[in-house]
Amino acid sequence: MVEVDGERLLESLQTLRGFGAVGSGVVRPTFSGPDMAARRWLRDQMEAAGLDAVVDGVGNVFGRSRNGGPALVIGSHSDTQPEGGWLDGALGVMYAIEVARALAELDSTRRLAVDVAAWSDEEGTYANFLGSRSFIGDLADGDMASTNTAGESVAEAIERVGLSHEPRVALDPARHIGYIEAHIEQGPHLEERGRRIGVVTSIVGMRTLQISFSGRQNHAGTTPMARRSDAGVALFDFGVRVRSRLESIAGPATVWTIGNARLEPGAESIVPGSAWCGLQFRDADEAVLDTVEAAVRDLAAEMTAEGPVAVSAARRRDPVTATDMSAELRRHLATAADARVRDGWTEMPSAAAHDAMVIAKSVPSAMLFIPSIDGISHDFAENSHDEDIVLGCQVLVDAAISILEP
Amino acid sequence: MVEVDGERLLESLQTLRGFGAVGSGVVRPTFSGPDMAARRWLRDQMEAAGLDAVVDGVGNVFGRSRNGGPALVIGSHSDTQPEGGWLDGALGVMYAIEVARALAELDSTRRLAVDVAAWSDEEGTYANFLGSRSFIGDLADGDMASTNTAGESVAEAIERVGLSHEPRVALDPARHIGYIEAHIEQGPHLEERGRRIGVVTSIVGMRTLQISFSGRQNHAGTTPMARRSDAGVALFDFGVRVRSRLESIAGPATVWTIGNARLEPGAESIVPGSAWCGLQFRDADEAVLDTVEAAVRDLAAEMTAEGPVAVSAARRRDPVTATDMSAELRRHLATAADARVRDGWTEMPSAAAHDAMVIAKSVPSAMLFIPSIDGISHDFAENSHDEDIVLGCQVLVDAAISILEP
Repeated sequence: MVEVDGERLLESLQTLRGFGAVGSGVVRPTFSGPDMAARRWLRDQMEAAGLDAVVDGVGNVFGRSRNGGPALVIGSHSDTQPEGGWLDGALGVMYAIEVARALAELDSTRRLAVDVAAWSDEEGTYANFLGSRSFIGDLADGDMASTNTAGESVAEAIERVGLSHEPRVALDPARHIGYIEAHIEQGPHLEERGRRIGVVTSIVGMRTLQISFSGRQNHAGTTPMARRSDAGVALFDFGVRVRSRLESIAGPATVWTIGNARLEPGAESIVPGSAWCGLQFRDADEAVLDTVEAAVRDLAAEMTAEGPVAVSAARRRDPVTATDMSAELRRHLATAADARVRDGWTEMPSAAAHDAMVIAKSVPSAMLFIPSIDGISHDFAENSHDEDIVLGCQVLVDAAISILEP
Repeated sequence: MVEVDGERLLESLQTLRGFGAVGSGVVRPTFSGPDMAARRWLRDQMEAAGLDAVVDGVGNVFGRSRNGGPALVIGSHSDTQPEGGWLDGALGVMYAIEVARALAELDSTRRLAVDVAAWSDEEGTYANFLGSRSFIGDLADGDMASTNTAGESVAEAIERVGLSHEPRVALDPARHIGYIEAHIEQGPHLEERGRRIGVVTSIVGMRTLQISFSGRQNHAGTTPMARRSDAGVALFDFGVRVRSRLESIAGPATVWTIGNARLEPGAESIVPGSAWCGLQFRDADEAVLDTVEAAVRDLAAEMTAEGPVAVSAARRRDPVTATDMSAELRRHLATAADARVRDGWTEMPSAAAHDAMVIAKSVPSAMLFIPSIDGISHDFAENSHDEDIVLGCQVLVDAAISILEP
C-alpha cells in the first residue's frame, strides 16, 4: 500500500497559500504576479517529483511522467477568484503532485504514469476554463481576445507574462486514459451528512436566461399610478412569481438565482421604462433544466398577456450541458473510498462547474470531493479539516494505482 | 383689457426652442453652451420689453421693471433635463416676458411693475433650484461645491461661463409682493378632464427612503435553496408587498416609485449578499406622507422579523414638505381663468416640484398650469396646443393686472 505523506502535503498547500495570501484567503487571479510566481513554483515542485514540467503557452503547468503510458492525468487549477479560498483548485493541484511523489517512492508503483496539471484560468478572470479547453483543443481564436475587467486580453496577458512563444500542452489520446480532479465540495452536503469523501456522479448543467421588461418611462411625480407601465414593478413581480413557480416543479437539488438586475434609467424620479435581470438555474438532469426553462418562458408570456409591461426571456449564453462522470473511474474512486472509510463516503453531483467538465468531452473523467467547513467557498473563510485533506489524497492515490495497474 | 399677442408669444417660444433643439425636443442643461446663449437672448428680450435685465452671479436672468413697487415677480426656468421638452420651464419664462411686453403697450397698465425671472438650474444638473434658492438667500456654501455628472462644481461652472464676478439678484421684501409661475402640467389630469387651465392649490411633498437588504453572499451553484439568505429575493418580495400595502392606505393622488435598485455584488453566479432600492413617494398631504412612511418602515421591520434577510429603511435625503400656494394669489388666477373659460379650468395640486415651491418660503406664490398633450413631459415628445399656450398667458396677464391694480 502506498501511503501519502500528510505532513508534506499540508506543508506544500501552506506554501502555495503564501502566493497571494490575504488574511486567511488568497488573491491569485490568473496571470497576476502571485499567480505566475505560484506557477513557476509548481513547475519546480513537479520537477522535484520526477516529472518533466513546463509552463505552457496559456499558463498551464504540466508535469509529464517519464514513464510510458497508459497515463492518468490528475490535477485542478491554481488560480483563484478575486477573493478566493486557500484550497479550492489549489487542493487538487497539490494532491496530484503528492500522488506523483508517493508513487515514485515505492518500487511497486514507480513505473506507473501520472501526468500532473495545474490548469490556467478556471475561474474565468479572462476566459473560463482557458487551460483545460486548450488542453483538449477546444480553444477558438476568439477566446484569445477575451478580456479581464481591466480590458487586457488573453493574448496580451500571455505576451506580458512571457509565455507567447511557449507551445501548448495537448491531450495525447495514445497516452492519456483518463482524468481525475479532486476539489473541496464548495457546499454543505458532505458535512451535513457526516461524510468525508464525495465521489462525483455528474457535474450539473447550467442555463442563464436574460429576462427583459419593457414598459414606458415617465415622470415619477406627475404620472398617476393607474396610468403607469412600470418595468420595475414587473421585475419585482417576476422575481416573486418565478420563485413560487420553480419551487413547485424543481428537483430536490435544482438551484436558481437572480444574481443581477437593473432598472433603466435608474433615476429616483423616473418611472423605469425598462428593466432586466439574469436568471441562472442548475441541475444534473437536463430534463429538469428543460422543465424550468419552459416554466420561465411561460411566465414571461403570461405576464406579457396580462400587461401592461412586456416580458421576454432569452438565453444569455450557450447552456452548459450536464456532464456525467466516467462510471469506470467512479468505481475505482468508490472502491478506494470504501476501503479507507467504510460508510464515510457518498456519491453526489457537483453543483459547481470544474475543469473535469471540459476534459470529460475528450477522455473519461471523474472527481473526488472533500468537505467544506460550513459549506463556504469562493470566500476567504473557505476551509477543510486537515484529516479530511489528507484522507482525500490517500483515496486519490489508491484509486490511481487501481486504475493504472493491469 | 390687455390682450396678449399670441403670434408674438408663439414665435418667441419657437426662437427659444432653437437654443439646443434636438428633433422635437431640447437639450439645454444648465451652463451648457445652448443654455448660456439662451440666457443672453432672454436678457436681450427683457431689455427690449423695457426691463433692466442682467444675467446674475448664478445664471439667473432677471429683468427688473423700471416702475416702482409693489412689484410682482413672474417667471420660471429656462434650463432643461438631459432630454427635455420644448415647453417645460421655457413656457413660463416667455409668458413672463410677454406679460411685460403687453403691459407696456397700454397706457392703463404701463405703470404696473412686473419683474421677470428665468431661474438657473431648476432641473438640478448641478444643484436643484439653484437660481430660485439664491434669489431667496437660501444657498449654502456647500451648494457651490455640488457637481454635475462630469464632476464640474457649480463654482467651477460659474467661473467657466464668466459669471463669477456678477452680483446675485435677491428678493426685495420692500418691493416684491408675490411670485407667479406658469408651467405645463406634466401630467394627464387637465387633458383627461377637458380643462384648459389649472390653478395650483399646493405643490406635493416628497420623501425618499433607501431600503437596504442584508443577507449572505454565496455560491449560486453549491448553496442549496433552503440554506440561502438571498438579498435579491427579499428585494423582489419587498417590491411586491410594498405595492399592495400602499395601495390600501394611499390617498387618491399619492404616487410612489422604486426608480433605482441594485443587487450586490451583481454577478450571475453569486447569491446576492446585499441589495438596495430607493422608494420615493409624493402627496400634497403631509399626513398621508407620514402614513406611507410608517407603513414602509413597518414592512421592513416585519420582513426582518420573518427573516432570513434583514431589511431597513432610512431617509435618503431631507424630505420636501408639501407647499400650499397663496390663497390670495390663487383667487386672482381663478377669477381670471373663470372670466376667460368658464368651467374650462380647475384647481389641482402640482405633482412635480417647481421653483414656486422654493420662493413660497419667502413671498406669497402661486402657479398656473396648461395641459400637456398625452401627459408627456421630460421627453422630446412634450407638447401643448397653441390655443392653450396663448390662453394661459392671457389668464396670467389678467391676473397680474388684478393683483397689481389697487
